Amino acid sequence: MKVMQAADFVLKRDEEDVYAEQREAALAILAEVKASGDAAVIAYTEQFDGAALDDLRIPADAYEAAYEQVTPEFLDALRAAILNIRRYHEAQKRTSLLLPDADGNLLGQIIRPLQRVGVYVPGGRAAYPSSVMMNVIPAQVAGVPEIVLVTPPDREGKIDPNVLVTIRELGITEAYRIGGAQAVGALAYGTETIRPVDKITGPGNIYVALAKQAVFGQVAIDMIAGPSEVLVIADESADPDYVAADMLSQAEHDPLAAAICVTPCADLAVRVANALVEQLEQLPRREIAEASIRNYGAIVVTKSLDEAVELSNRIAPEHLELMTEDALSLVGRIENAGAIFVGKYSSEPVGDYFAGPNHTLPTSGTARFSSPLGVDDFIKKSSLICYSKDALLKNGHHVIALAEAEGLTAHANAIRVRLEKEREVR
Amino acid sequence: MKVMQAADFVLKRDEEDVYAEQREAALAILAEVKASGDAAVIAYTEQFDGAALDDLRIPADAYEAAYEQVTPEFLDALRAAILNIRRYHEAQKRTSLLLPDADGNLLGQIIRPLQRVGVYVPGGRAAYPSSVMMNVIPAQVAGVPEIVLVTPPDREGKIDPNVLVTIRELGITEAYRIGGAQAVGALAYGTETIRPVDKITGPGNIYVALAKQAVFGQVAIDMIAGPSEVLVIADESADPDYVAADMLSQAEHDPLAAAICVTPCADLAVRVANALVEQLEQLPRREIAEASIRNYGAIVVTKSLDEAVELSNRIAPEHLELMTEDALSLVGRIENAGAIFVGKYSSEPVGDYFAGPNHTLPTSGTARFSSPLGVDDFIKKSSLICYSKDALLKNGHHVIALAEAEGLTAHANAIRVRLEKEREVR
Repeated sequence: MKVMQAADFVLKRDEEDVYAEQREAALAILAEVKASGDAAVIAYTEQFDGAALDDLRIPADAYEAAYEQVTPEFLDALRAAILNIRRYHEAQKRTSLLLPDADGNLLGQIIRPLQRVGVYVPGGRAAYPSSVMMNVIPAQVAGVPEIVLVTPPDREGKIDPNVLVTIRELGITEAYRIGGAQAVGALAYGTETIRPVDKITGPGNIYVALAKQAVFGQVAIDMIAGPSEVLVIADESADPDYVAADMLSQAEHDPLAAAICVTPCADLAVRVANALVEQLEQLPRREIAEASIRNYGAIVVTKSLDEAVELSNRIAPEHLELMTEDALSLVGRIENAGAIFVGKYSSEPVGDYFAGPNHTLPTSGTARFSSPLGVDDFIKKSSLICYSKDALLKNGHHVIALAEAEGLTAHANAIRVRLEKEREVR
Repeated sequence: MKVMQAADFVLKRDEEDVYAEQREAALAILAEVKASGDAAVIAYTEQFDGAALDDLRIPADAYEAAYEQVTPEFLDALRAAILNIRRYHEAQKRTSLLLPDADGNLLGQIIRPLQRVGVYVPGGRAAYPSSVMMNVIPAQVAGVPEIVLVTPPDREGKIDPNVLVTIRELGITEAYRIGGAQAVGALAYGTETIRPVDKITGPGNIYVALAKQAVFGQVAIDMIAGPSEVLVIADESADPDYVAADMLSQAEHDPLAAAICVTPCADLAVRVANALVEQLEQLPRREIAEASIRNYGAIVVTKSLDEAVELSNRIAPEHLELMTEDALSLVGRIENAGAIFVGKYSSEPVGDYFAGPNHTLPTSGTARFSSPLGVDDFIKKSSLICYSKDALLKNGHHVIALAEAEGLTAHANAIRVRLEKEREVR
């Protein structure tokens, strides 16, 4: 664990394309799925997941069996979380705009849900019911009529019971037990069984990410997530145990995850460093967390709280925790952050699972220009222009002047032909 | 001009990467700008634009000279258009959300403008004041504090007076006379003179488009526009001269532009075809328009108005004109379109220049999942989670249950360490 000065700190990520080989593999899989449809998807599922499927759909009886397997604590927690996440996203919903004016024009912005969305849910060694909630709920709130879910099966073709129960609790009825680049291909191009979607969201391994990148344009995708980050701004009032615990909850995700504490208090820096060592020893996922802390972890001592805020704005962290006195008053100075957790009770996992806001957040400094996943990601807008005869007669010459300034004479002509005819009619 | 049935019509674009060579060139330019900054930008400007610049900035006195050169008609039209475009985009503005609850939690969605945005304005043979308006105004309405504009100069290092006057009317003070991939590189990476931006928007030639694609991730970009399209749904009430004039105003943009009329009225189809031939003869940009109409133009006769709407939804046109009786009643059935122009006075150029909505629209069928450029493209959102002690004590066990279901024990621990301490303190 490095303790350093703000000026010395740079969160450096590898810029090289270390994934050339995986990219080639993903592209080959996509091409094969495009060409051969279901047959290719079935073959890849056997090859990569070890499951021989006769039917891509998750069978209906799997859900009932899953309810027997999950704990009552999980089901209670899930239902409470769904309510919270739905309530938060409902507040993001927007309505179409209409701007009538005195010239008789109607201008508008029509907001409609996407028609068909595919949600990728990772599987394999781990299972992520929270991914199901965080991708499906905003799409549902947006009003997307067709939401299709894909998730890779185990060798028996089975899906994690917690994930199955989450799918059912959310009322998703079209779900397939496929994963990897082959699932992305099926969603983008369609197969005999699966109709193509308009957008694919949800996290996955490197093959999934590269496949999503490759089909972008054919369909929309959410942002490709990089490694996860938390930055904690703390002062002498912070509890070092809480700071360390939150840093480790980020670090356990991935050896590439970054957990950074920024503090003007040198004493706190030392106490956080000690707490990290202590807590690390008790972690089942110690190996991952330790690698993350060693390579990307840092405790940065700043000259002031102002400097801490500045550094944070420069890094634009995915998760930002403010554990300072009167933390809420810092919020207005935070320029770039995916999610801001205020005060000592706002531990990051509260946001990952439960509070309501989305846990899909911009990583790798992209909070400078991008935003958490939300209802806006599942809608499309159309402009509406309903121009009146009066307005055209009054303003037509302006349109002509602007078109001619750009040398676009057919544009000017489209107005002129109307002005001539309509003035006659008058 | 082909007249055909709906079932036979597919708007087919080339899917191959025909730009491999240009992509390589753009990447080489970007690398050089990243390495050598201003020196590289100056060298490329000399090489590609033929201008030897001592200063990248557009000189202050150029603006005053430009006001002497533009016509009063242009200036009047420009000022009227700016008011309209600003008024429309003001209506798109959104405010931050705050959701307090009875448990003492504060959840929120904070909306902030991007900090620094680069607008690319094409130059060279043509000049596009409308591009300046349509990119700058939504950024200004969003509240972006730093808007920097780039546009390529002529061989004397000069910029079109109409563009200069537009820049000045909008109050943009940071503008550079550079273009091409080198300008994109300067905006993305920064040089000695130009600080890097968070997002680059605006249209350009193929090198600009490929360079924008390449820097995506480093900065945000707007959508890369494909060739322009208009689809006109018309019935027997439509004026074939208006339909043809609007189709040609699209066709004159680019030999790859697509102008399509879809009508259930075979008689109108013939009359539109005739009007096209007639009007084409009088067009200065006839060669371009003719190529576009020949290759991508079509008049499609449908069995019904319903079938016309269906076809349009399938194509998801950039511009959709509805020239039917009671056209406004069709709007609710339009699933996919960048902008919808309703009725015979709503000629597409009215929207391109003047009415208020943005003219930067999703092309090539991407209206299925994307939207016109607008204020939303110049903001970023941050989630806010300010959790209370009461809520944590009440719900902590739910967060733990969900974290443990995903095997993320450090997440569970971050909650547990708080529950233990805070319950003691109670």
